[in-house]
Amino acid sequence: MKNTFGSSVAVTLFGESHGEAIGAVLDGLAPGIPVDEGFIAAQLDLRRPFGKISTPRQESDPFRIVSGCFNGKTTGTPLTILIPNGDTKSKDYSKTKDLARPGHADLSAQLKYHGYQDFRGGGHFSGRITAALVAAGAIALSALEKKGIAIRSHIRACAGVEDRAFAPDEKGLRADIAALRGSRFPVLEQAAAEAMQKRILEAAEEHDSVGGILETAVCGLPAGVGEPWFDTLESVLSHMLFAVPAVKGVEFGDGFALAGMRGSQANDPFRVENGRYITTTNRNGGINGGISNGMPVLFRCAFKPTPSIFREQETVDFAKEENATLALEGRHDPVIVHRAAVVVDSVTALVLCDMLALRFGTDWLAE
Amino acid sequence: MKNTFGSSVAVTLFGESHGEAIGAVLDGLAPGIPVDEGFIAAQLDLRRPFGKISTPRQESDPFRIVSGCFNGKTTGTPLTILIPNGDTKSKDYSKTKDLARPGHADLSAQLKYHGYQDFRGGGHFSGRITAALVAAGAIALSALEKKGIAIRSHIRACAGVEDRAFAPDEKGLRADIAALRGSRFPVLEQAAAEAMQKRILEAAEEHDSVGGILETAVCGLPAGVGEPWFDTLESVLSHMLFAVPAVKGVEFGDGFALAGMRGSQANDPFRVENGRYITTTNRNGGINGGISNGMPVLFRCAFKPTPSIFREQETVDFAKEENATLALEGRHDPVIVHRAAVVVDSVTALVLCDMLALRFGTDWLAE
Amino acid sequence: MKNTFGSSVAVTLFGESHGEAIGAVLDGLAPGIPVDEGFIAAQLDLRRPFGKISTPRQESDPFRIVSGCFNGKTTGTPLTILIPNGDTKSKDYSKTKDLARPGHADLSAQLKYHGYQDFRGGGHFSGRITAALVAAGAIALSALEKKGIAIRSHIRACAGVEDRAFAPDEKGLRADIAALRGSRFPVLEQAAAEAMQKRILEAAEEHDSVGGILETAVCGLPAGVGEPWFDTLESVLSHMLFAVPAVKGVEFGDGFALAGMRGSQANDPFRVENGRYITTTNRNGGINGGISNGMPVLFRCAFKPTPSIFREQETVDFAKEENATLALEGRHDPVIVHRAAVVVDSVTALVLCDMLALRFGTDWLAE
Amino acid sequence: MKNTFGSSVAVTLFGESHGEAIGAVLDGLAPGIPVDEGFIAAQLDLRRPFGKISTPRQESDPFRIVSGCFNGKTTGTPLTILIPNGDTKSKDYSKTKDLARPGHADLSAQLKYHGYQDFRGGGHFSGRITAALVAAGAIALSALEKKGIAIRSHIRACAGVEDRAFAPDEKGLRADIAALRGSRFPVLEQAAAEAMQKRILEAAEEHDSVGGILETAVCGLPAGVGEPWFDTLESVLSHMLFAVPAVKGVEFGDGFALAGMRGSQANDPFRVENGRYITTTNRNGGINGGISNGMPVLFRCAFKPTPSIFREQETVDFAKEENATLALEGRHDPVIVHRAAVVVDSVTALVLCDMLALRFGTDWLAE
Repeated sequence: MKNTFGSSVAVTLFGESHGEAIGAVLDGLAPGIPVDEGFIAAQLDLRRPFGKISTPRQESDPFRIVSGCFNGKTTGTPLTILIPNGDTKSKDYSKTKDLARPGHADLSAQLKYHGYQDFRGGGHFSGRITAALVAAGAIALSALEKKGIAIRSHIRACAGVEDRAFAPDEKGLRADIAALRGSRFPVLEQAAAEAMQKRILEAAEEHDSVGGILETAVCGLPAGVGEPWFDTLESVLSHMLFAVPAVKGVEFGDGFALAGMRGSQANDPFRVENGRYITTTNRNGGINGGISNGMPVLFRCAFKPTPSIFREQETVDFAKEENATLALEGRHDPVIVHRAAVVVDSVTALVLCDMLALRFGTDWLAE
Repeated sequence: MKNTFGSSVAVTLFGESHGEAIGAVLDGLAPGIPVDEGFIAAQLDLRRPFGKISTPRQESDPFRIVSGCFNGKTTGTPLTILIPNGDTKSKDYSKTKDLARPGHADLSAQLKYHGYQDFRGGGHFSGRITAALVAAGAIALSALEKKGIAIRSHIRACAGVEDRAFAPDEKGLRADIAALRGSRFPVLEQAAAEAMQKRILEAAEEHDSVGGILETAVCGLPAGVGEPWFDTLESVLSHMLFAVPAVKGVEFGDGFALAGMRGSQANDPFRVENGRYITTTNRNGGINGGISNGMPVLFRCAFKPTPSIFREQETVDFAKEENATLALEGRHDPVIVHRAAVVVDSVTALVLCDMLALRFGTDWLAE
Repeated sequence: MKNTFGSSVAVTLFGESHGEAIGAVLDGLAPGIPVDEGFIAAQLDLRRPFGKISTPRQESDPFRIVSGCFNGKTTGTPLTILIPNGDTKSKDYSKTKDLARPGHADLSAQLKYHGYQDFRGGGHFSGRITAALVAAGAIALSALEKKGIAIRSHIRACAGVEDRAFAPDEKGLRADIAALRGSRFPVLEQAAAEAMQKRILEAAEEHDSVGGILETAVCGLPAGVGEPWFDTLESVLSHMLFAVPAVKGVEFGDGFALAGMRGSQANDPFRVENGRYITTTNRNGGINGGISNGMPVLFRCAFKPTPSIFREQETVDFAKEENATLALEGRHDPVIVHRAAVVVDSVTALVLCDMLALRFGTDWLAE
Repeated sequence: MKNTFGSSVAVTLFGESHGEAIGAVLDGLAPGIPVDEGFIAAQLDLRRPFGKISTPRQESDPFRIVSGCFNGKTTGTPLTILIPNGDTKSKDYSKTKDLARPGHADLSAQLKYHGYQDFRGGGHFSGRITAALVAAGAIALSALEKKGIAIRSHIRACAGVEDRAFAPDEKGLRADIAALRGSRFPVLEQAAAEAMQKRILEAAEEHDSVGGILETAVCGLPAGVGEPWFDTLESVLSHMLFAVPAVKGVEFGDGFALAGMRGSQANDPFRVENGRYITTTNRNGGINGGISNGMPVLFRCAFKPTPSIFREQETVDFAKEENATLALEGRHDPVIVHRAAVVVDSVTALVLCDMLALRFGTDWLAE
């Protein structure tokens, strides 16, 4: 379905970096969910660049809810969020429009859209479009939180520096999630944050960029969510996660590390505890057979380094169909992984709202 | 859509391990595609256990095409493949039916289906169901091969032993793909295969199991395939790959390793070569912005170890709602990653047929 | 989705008239729904020809449930019904295979499938395929009946003779529905049934065929079902109804007659009665704004006459690409509208199971 | 999918009558299709009320394309049209907000959305939302016209007066279509138009309203379009047509009249004419077996009378849960069928773009 995702609760995404506006239509949300515009703004703020490690450009993200919200609550009909694009200096892009930026979608978009695509600033492929996902996701996150479901990501690794993993026990995990709330550089250990930022600045000084790994936890998801064979929880989450720009890997639980284990290590033993089924380890990330088992859902996304760097790169001019070199100018982030955390939280919330509505009915989320 | 996947070309999967039959309905295939029953049988054979490293059980996979094939070619209407289940010794499972096997879907299925699920041998969650995907995928693989698109997986790592990566150049890659054809233990370096098998047997002797990593290459895919935002090539492939039992991680190109690189390393430079756009490295696995760029598509899937092991494990009895121990008996594989290679090839082919039909029209695949 | 319909509860249809088998996969049904094979057989029997007004051919419809049913109840995983084709005399069709039968799908199928379609007896376009819908629908009908939702069709008009309309009050309607149960020629007034059958036989003697109108009532559907804008109750029902062969018109409530009314006649007044909202008339067929209002849902389907007639007809030979004449031989029904009643009931039930599951969750139907 | 329709080409609809804006997102259109804003405005104008037979309210429909259009052409990424709502006098609605207007969606919406729906002027159920479909449809209509596919509707019947049917031959039909271009009261015979308008004014004077029947023709559609079983051309068109407010019946070809014919009348004979297959009659409306046969596609939609009338009506107050009466005030149309013609043309174009893209690939429409 291209730019629409979900069945019971669906999000449609539109817009280009330098067009009039970007936005999202959120369809199928239960009627009566509170829409907290302050929280939406706060979430959008987490996605914006900050400090020395981000571009000095001041993106402002004023948004308007143009449908689907009445008296501060969802109506049950499509909720549309519009984020106008501000001053976007389109002239920056005209002279390099036929030079495919390495690591970007420019060439593949050219081969798909035959030159009709809006090339300015990446157009529809720009990371800016994720702002609309964040705004829509804020409503989903709030609704889930009211149902006891908390979602949060931290930077597990960046620029060669590792943060500690989420606490293995649910109490510790809930504390970690609380501690990360509102963080613009979400890391669990302060020393790791400082080391990461130091390395990021070093890369920036060398006109280069870095990538990183986000680790996400979902607490409180009911057991029994996921639809085998093809709409397993892992399948649907990964579908959405790989749509986030720069994501090149997704793993659940211990993920790739599981491939090197023995079965006796990898199997999470089941136990009954206070009348509830738990696993004593959570190497499978809260998912067995594609269905949630009631334990925290855990996954990691690998983000490649920001492709925009300030070094001369080899590329092609697809108007002339010949080799060329490209040296980017302008303003670019040496890292985006910290800004991507709120994007991952948001798309996770959108997927879970859909799967929960499918499982428990249209009204469940607002009950 | 639960057990149906795809839009232009869709596959519907059904059946339980110990029911009458499993099968798949393949809908939307172009009319006129040759259906080679010998190739289907050969592919099914690659999925079957063999030698010492697999269960001695002789699964035979006789199949019947009950619709959608006429005079040896696809009709364009739904093609249904039925694989009857043979002698399945249902009694084996009755005494352990309320004991959730760690690492399996038993408990989550119980919480989702409230005890109505067919518990015998994993029921609808059994890896046996992949046979239907392999049979359907064989037709897709043949059709793609006629269009110059080759797909093949090898065991990149297993039991702590690594195979070499696919050759970096397309000529070498085509040779690797050719060399793997028909291999029941698809590894590029013979020494690696032997070391893996030795380690697998050691694990089996210790009543344990191992996992592994499959690496898959797609050669010849046209540029311009993939539908941002949500139906990127990575998104749709990962959706299907995570539906394959035991897959806990998926990465494209250099995947998680990209997260530790600088942008100057990670960006694949574009070049024009013989009138065709190429990249001089392929760290992004042939995909930029979610769209194929014409280079080989490369990805890896992490398989956790086979959850069935012959050691006593802690678990729960969900009829009694209390703790229990479980010692499995019967016949189980200490490894399934070699058998999963043909499954991954098959689901990859099914996804690509869908995306190519969406892009180029219903008839393209048979033109 | 071509041969799959529905989102929460989906049916996939496959098979050709003269292939090995036809069948349906029913996915997403709640676990724990009783599967009454006797009722399935009885419903299939209603679809079979009978007496003088139908072909003397004895179709027998032995079916097998090959997945998704365990201990007599749905498992929640895909339920597959297979109906093998019996003795089908394929030779009958070889000499006329390139002659498009007027009123049939032969020519349009040729233009779509380029000659690869199975031409024998209409292949995948044969009315025989509806048997699989009836078998799947029987399970849906039983499940709905347990929830107080009754669905039944009668022949409102056939061969120029009209039956009376359904009783306008719910009590009378429930009685009408009960009276029609198990009828192989479902008509409310015996005199109408006799007159219809007389006219049908007259048409048959003249080597001709007749059409008719089915009127369907759904009692007990909860209010609030239907998903504007595009998945209104009318939209989704009509989608499925127009997939039934020979249906060329669908109208809800007073349908086309409403177009000639004044608003003051057409508007159904709302009232409160015993704490429940009702309308004092039901000209809108229980649906306002695409959403059920709690009153009986009423609709009519127009069936064109059976296209197979025993008169010489003008047509084309699409192998020779020239004009030709065709005189059918063999066994054909002069009318199919009475046999279609159970098909309409079945597809209505399948649609409603989907929409109710979407609205109230996956488990609702079995609660 | 609720407010999104289509797979290859999909439209998402949002907005409420008295919210900030309504709009549509058109996804999957081929890149490079010219976007003629003048034509969009002209089409929107056809939907607006005019003269004595419509409300004196001056709706203006200024629209903005906020994404998906670059240098006057589609980009291939989602095209979003926003139509701000102007001065909407919300106070009109507050005192009657709990009184369900008979014939409207008020009560069923209340039962579905539990009072959270935007009740002002029908909210998301308002006919005003069709403006967004008209704007999106204008782009689709233009694109189809360039491919030789013309779509046009006329008022076949209104207020008890009939217009003549479309000319039976393709040349005559093309002339009829040309003659109707730009008509705000699209009727083929001037005398019929005058008689209809006279009757409409009579109804208005009696504070009542009338309905009507639209007849639509599609010329130039290639043969072989339509996807049996479930996505037949009739199924998908009817799905969308029944989503248009006030449509209560849809019939293809001779529709309900076919039910009273003999097979010998109803079967359209095939012929070869100038190397092309035709039918000498077109009682099946250009569709056999759910697939286009190359003849003009013909269908009719029944529109019930405008439900808003200026007479006291019996209804319920759903806040008090008791009986009430309602006398509407304000401005309402005594007829909407003439304004609905452009809506039907638009949704037909959207459906056909989707089915053609599915059949012939993403780029076909702009080739």
